This record gives sequence, C-alpha cells and structure tokens, in this order.
Amino acid sequence: MPYPESMVKLIEALAQLPGVGSRTAERFAFYVLNSRAETVEELAALLVKVNGSIHACQVCFNLSQEPVCHICSDPTRDHTLLCVVQDPKDVIALEKAGDYKGVYHVLLGALSPLEGIGPKDLKIKELLERLKQGEVREVVLGTTSDTEGDATATYLARQLKPLKLRVTRIAHGVPVGSALEFVDKATLARAMRYRQEI
Amino acid sequence: MPYPESMVKLIEALAQLPGVGSRTAERFAFYVLNSRAETVEELAALLVKVNGSIHACQVCFNLSQEPVCHICSDPTRDHTLLCVVQDPKDVIALEKAGDYKGVYHVLLGALSPLEGIGPKDLKIKELLERLKQGEVREVVLGTTSDTEGDATATYLARQLKPLKLRVTRIAHGVPVGSALEFVDKATLARAMRYRQEI
Repeated sequence: MPYPESMVKLIEALAQLPGVGSRTAERFAFYVLNSRAETVEELAALLVKVNGSIHACQVCFNLSQEPVCHICSDPTRDHTLLCVVQDPKDVIALEKAGDYKGVYHVLLGALSPLEGIGPKDLKIKELLERLKQGEVREVVLGTTSDTEGDATATYLARQLKPLKLRVTRIAHGVPVGSALEFVDKATLARAMRYRQEI
Repeated sequence: MPYPESMVKLIEALAQLPGVGSRTAERFAFYVLNSRAETVEELAALLVKVNGSIHACQVCFNLSQEPVCHICSDPTRDHTLLCVVQDPKDVIALEKAGDYKGVYHVLLGALSPLEGIGPKDLKIKELLERLKQGEVREVVLGTTSDTEGDATATYLARQLKPLKLRVTRIAHGVPVGSALEFVDKATLARAMRYRQEI
C-alpha cells in the first residue's frame, strides 16, 4: 500500500465520481493534501450541504434549497407559460440559454414501458392538478425527442386536451451553426418535415 | 443563476480540482446531489482528515499519517539501502512498481538556481545527518533525469563522498516495451552510453 490509509480511502471515494479513474482520483487527493485547511473544510461543508438541503421544488419538482424554487417564486416570470421537461438538468440548460421567461414542470423521467416506467411514476398527476388551477394558458412539451420523450409528449398532449389549453412541442431541427453534413439523419428528416415559412 | 446558491458554490469549489472545468464540476455536483447521505458525509470527512492529518514523515519526509511513515517503521524493509527522490509521488511510483525493498529520503524538490532553490531549501542536511548514523550502506540517487535532477544528483554525490558509502544513480534508458522509434533523442543517447554487458 503505497499511500497512508486515509489517503487510500479518499482516492477510492473520489474514484466514484463520474468519469474519474484512480489516476485522476490520485491527482485530486494530492490537491486536497496541498490545499489550505479552510479551502478543504469549505468544500467538505458544501458537499454535505448540497446533498442534505437540495430537494425537489413542491410546485415544479426542479432543484431547490427552499420548499418552492426560485423560478416558481419569482413574480417577474410568466406564470401563464409552462414548459414540461424530464429532468432538472433540462431546466438548467434552458435557463442558461436565458431566453425562456415562463415556468417549468419537471416530470422526473419519461414514459418507458421497457423499464417499467408508467404515468404514475412521473409527476403527471401533479402537472394536471397544477393546470386545473387555471393560471397556465400554454404548455410547451419540452421532453427529449427520442422514443420515450416523444411517447411522453404524445401521452401528455392527449391528457391535456380536455383542459382547452394551447399545447405546443419544442422545435426540433438542425442545431444553430451546424452544417447539414454533420447532422444525423433523424434530425434532418424532422427538420425537413417541420420546415417553416419565411 | 440556474442553480440553487449552495450548488453554485459547490460547482465553483469542485472546478478548482486539477483538470476539472465547470461542466465536469456540474457532473460531480449532480453525483453529490444524488448520492446517499452517508456516502457524501464519508467523502467530506476524508477530505478534511487527509488535509489535516497527512504530513511529512520525520525521518524520510514521505507522506505519513503517523510521525514516522509506514516504510521507515517497517522492520522487514532493508534499512541499509536508501533511495533519494525529489517528491512523495516518486516514492509512490517506486512502491507501486513493488520491486524496491529499501527505504527512502524525499528531498521535497531539486536544486534549481533559476527558481532560487538551493541546497538549504531541500532536505539535504537531514539526509546527511541520517547517513552519519551509519546504518545505510548504499544510496541510490533517484532524482529525475533533467537539468535540475541531474544537478541535484551530482551535488549529492559530491557531498556523500566523505561518508565512504556506495553511491549509485538509478538507471535511465529505453522504457520497457517501448520501440526505439518512439523514444526521445536524449533518452536514446543515454541508453547507448550506459549500455550493459549481457
């Protein structure tokens, strides 16, 4: 055992991080070894804090430190426009893009009969209850454009029909800045089918 | 700010790890978010423990949790054979190779007039005191084969002369398994100069 025991344990723990092998974990452990005590103590406290204090927002199931997240509790957002996504990471991607000013609803997954994930495993009942309160006028279905995401969007569109809302699907097509030669066939076919008047 | 505040701080802290950018730090933060509380608490405790409890061995200046490291305090090692290296990472590399059964002395650097590192900045005085106790019969100079490492080895060889010990230099040459075409010129020249009888 070339390292002291606690160092071995730390390297093993760091090697559990996604994409980190034992060599990278060793480099991280040396960083920890050579850092100031305050830096390391702050990192340790943040790890525990994030793990213990961040949970799903009661309203939209996005990540939140408070019972209701900062998006749901923001009066300057457009609460009549609601985007349905699969994962908190999708909210983050849209927020980083910065253009969307509505609110969200995170399903925490997508329908997948193969994996045994049905409507009851997603936050669909909560979505319908939220929409029945009447504030939302348009629902944008922002689920991924793969088999599960498309199936989820189709299922939701059918569920939402009786509510007489505007229901839209986020646009899929050629990524901005990408030459057509680098775009996969399914995306190109979809981009052609949903071409727009200019 | 797409993330809750403590998550933003955690991502910033994780992005300080060597070779980690903000995207990787985000992935690590999600791992922390989705891990069991015990896993994260253990990681946090190990970070603080390693940073606070691992220091230089009093004898050889290798990494150690105890005042004297597990190599120096191991009676099954050959205490008459001592390898001088620059860095604790060099000890780890040699220990992983597994072949060497002697003890070490870590200089914590190499002579470098350009960076203002002279003999007093390295653990050379401590090495000489250790050798004067008379147990060591052979010193292997295992400093790196670059300008600083070679200068350090030459300097030490001169300092050790009066002690009437066997002084050797670790062999440099073509790495095992490497075709000659991929070996740099300086290594090839050295490998040729120090060729061995078979």
